[in-house]
Amino acid sequence: MKSSQIKVSEIGEKGLIERIIEKSKTCSICGFDTNNDFSNFATSIGDDSALTSVDMDDNSYLVTSTDMLIQSSHFPKGMTYFQMGYKSVVVNVSDLSSMGAENIGFLLNIAIPKGMLLDDFDDLICGVIRACDNYNIPLIGGDTNEANEIIISGTAIGQVDKNKALMKYGFQKGDLVCISDELGYAALGFELLALKEKDQDLYLEKIDKINQIDPTIIDLALLKALKPEAKYSEGHILREHNTANNRISATDITDGLASEFYEILNSDKKYCHNSNSSNSYTKGIRIYEEKLPVEDEFKEIANILDLSYLDLFLHVGEDFEFLFTINEELKDQLSTEMNYYVIGEITDDNTVEIVLSNGQIEKISSRGYQHLK
Amino acid sequence: MKSSQIKVSEIGEKGLIERIIEKSKTCSICGFDTNNDFSNFATSIGDDSALTSVDMDDNSYLVTSTDMLIQSSHFPKGMTYFQMGYKSVVVNVSDLSSMGAENIGFLLNIAIPKGMLLDDFDDLICGVIRACDNYNIPLIGGDTNEANEIIISGTAIGQVDKNKALMKYGFQKGDLVCISDELGYAALGFELLALKEKDQDLYLEKIDKINQIDPTIIDLALLKALKPEAKYSEGHILREHNTANNRISATDITDGLASEFYEILNSDKKYCHNSNSSNSYTKGIRIYEEKLPVEDEFKEIANILDLSYLDLFLHVGEDFEFLFTINEELKDQLSTEMNYYVIGEITDDNTVEIVLSNGQIEKISSRGYQHLK
Repeated sequence: MKSSQIKVSEIGEKGLIERIIEKSKTCSICGFDTNNDFSNFATSIGDDSALTSVDMDDNSYLVTSTDMLIQSSHFPKGMTYFQMGYKSVVVNVSDLSSMGAENIGFLLNIAIPKGMLLDDFDDLICGVIRACDNYNIPLIGGDTNEANEIIISGTAIGQVDKNKALMKYGFQKGDLVCISDELGYAALGFELLALKEKDQDLYLEKIDKINQIDPTIIDLALLKALKPEAKYSEGHILREHNTANNRISATDITDGLASEFYEILNSDKKYCHNSNSSNSYTKGIRIYEEKLPVEDEFKEIANILDLSYLDLFLHVGEDFEFLFTINEELKDQLSTEMNYYVIGEITDDNTVEIVLSNGQIEKISSRGYQHLK
Repeated sequence: MKSSQIKVSEIGEKGLIERIIEKSKTCSICGFDTNNDFSNFATSIGDDSALTSVDMDDNSYLVTSTDMLIQSSHFPKGMTYFQMGYKSVVVNVSDLSSMGAENIGFLLNIAIPKGMLLDDFDDLICGVIRACDNYNIPLIGGDTNEANEIIISGTAIGQVDKNKALMKYGFQKGDLVCISDELGYAALGFELLALKEKDQDLYLEKIDKINQIDPTIIDLALLKALKPEAKYSEGHILREHNTANNRISATDITDGLASEFYEILNSDKKYCHNSNSSNSYTKGIRIYEEKLPVEDEFKEIANILDLSYLDLFLHVGEDFEFLFTINEELKDQLSTEMNYYVIGEITDDNTVEIVLSNGQIEKISSRGYQHLK
């Protein structure tokens, strides 16, 4: 029987786990050898828990992040099985990297329908393993289950020096508000995928117009939506510059930039409150439309799709870029080490606002994506 | 509006996370104060990842286990929300304890339907927190999502001395095969719940007969099925006796005792193979019906339900008792420290068999529960 006709139910849970272990050694189906070093935890494969050697001391925190992706809410139509697996690693590595952590290991907990084809399962696992390899995080354990749709719950484990962890809080008035790259491409990609699903003719008509402006943007937007990457090395660079005298705060942008602005302010407010600061909290954020890294072509394309480019930039997430704050002194040095954009500053105006290109100042609302709302 | 009418969608993801954090401090809704010590990771609540201080050195392994529970396949009708939450911790703590690990922290990754009542959500979280408290494992982080049914993916993190970890392998011919307590009660509970669902009249008729034999057994069976407990301290006791000269192997019984017999033999076979043992693998397991801890009443009740008590004992899991092997020398000392039963021994007969009370010897098949089969 050709592999392409086999369903996962013919292999069963234990066979699938063996398959994952085999593939994580040399993922030949992807035509690609992994760098996974199993010497660390080879003794515990198939045991009740995974055992991992870690080189850790009192000066380090264990860093853990867990994220669940559910087919019907997280995977748009058009996403491949490989991309689903890949994304399940990215979302967790992104959370670890935005704390400045070094990766230790990844746990894959996956539920799949009985009727899933083994080939599709293999593609999904290849996506997981390829991402683990790219982000230098070994797959150390996991579990498989049965469900009506694909559910991937990943857990990433890492470590970071206690004094170097990149928290959401700890910025001061005058600190620069930065992002690691352009935003809004993932949002554009999701809009395109939704339109294609809803109205194929209209979609083709819009694509035609978009291609006249910039034929590369559609591919870029779809790539950002379907196969996002985590800012792995950027997290490490920022961590190294994070000192008691020059605090850097950082978070990954998952629910939209505006939503993350309010997240870091809330976090900082709680931190200041816990630090028994007697003053009332007045910090705010001001950004400048002129400073936003947005190409004119992106604005035109948003327009074609009857969307506001600022909405795409501010209020939709999933780009997995970083929002971070630095002391002005670090600005030049940092730009020699990584790509980033200064888009504004921390104020003491107790508000989140944008200075538009026409000089007007507008308040930015916290509206962002939230599950179960 | 009374809390009982509120749906989780009125609170949203962020509100629910705040609620979990609040409840994990003092779970007043359970009428119960937790012992959770947040000082370890208070700084990172609400940040991208959880930060945990661990006291760990080169002599320890990081121990990780992850398990997903899905309402339609893991939670029988009749299970309360509290019990669902409780079980999600138990299954993971059981995996950690059966390695002999000390707990570090628990990550809760939960997906729920939009229409779930907030009161039910609270009950579920209380179950999680109560179990975390019972097993001395702080809730250190997690994520909430939306799904069509309840999905709980838990990850438990712990540590164990490298020389003390309780693996599935490492036993010798003549080692005693032991279990930590009676088996089959959870299986009996699941049978009763299934019968109640299928045929209420027949269920009541059987219950009546069972109560004439022993009125306590139904409660015990339902408790084992709906609110299992992990063998937490037993794992620590066994670990302390585990030395290079007196190897103890251990696993928790989740898929049925017979299935676990084959698991430990397979694991030991691989271990011996990797250790470059040149001999072919011939180890086996022999158990004795007479030595099985089974009350006569249990046998009678199985009979009433047209079930084989040996099937319940051998081929259904979910009791979360331990299967372990010890050197005969440890037998008496261990019995002063914990409850357990010797049911057989490791042989070099290359088979898994039971000596029945009538003297006949029967091979035991590996038939046990397996997802996706």
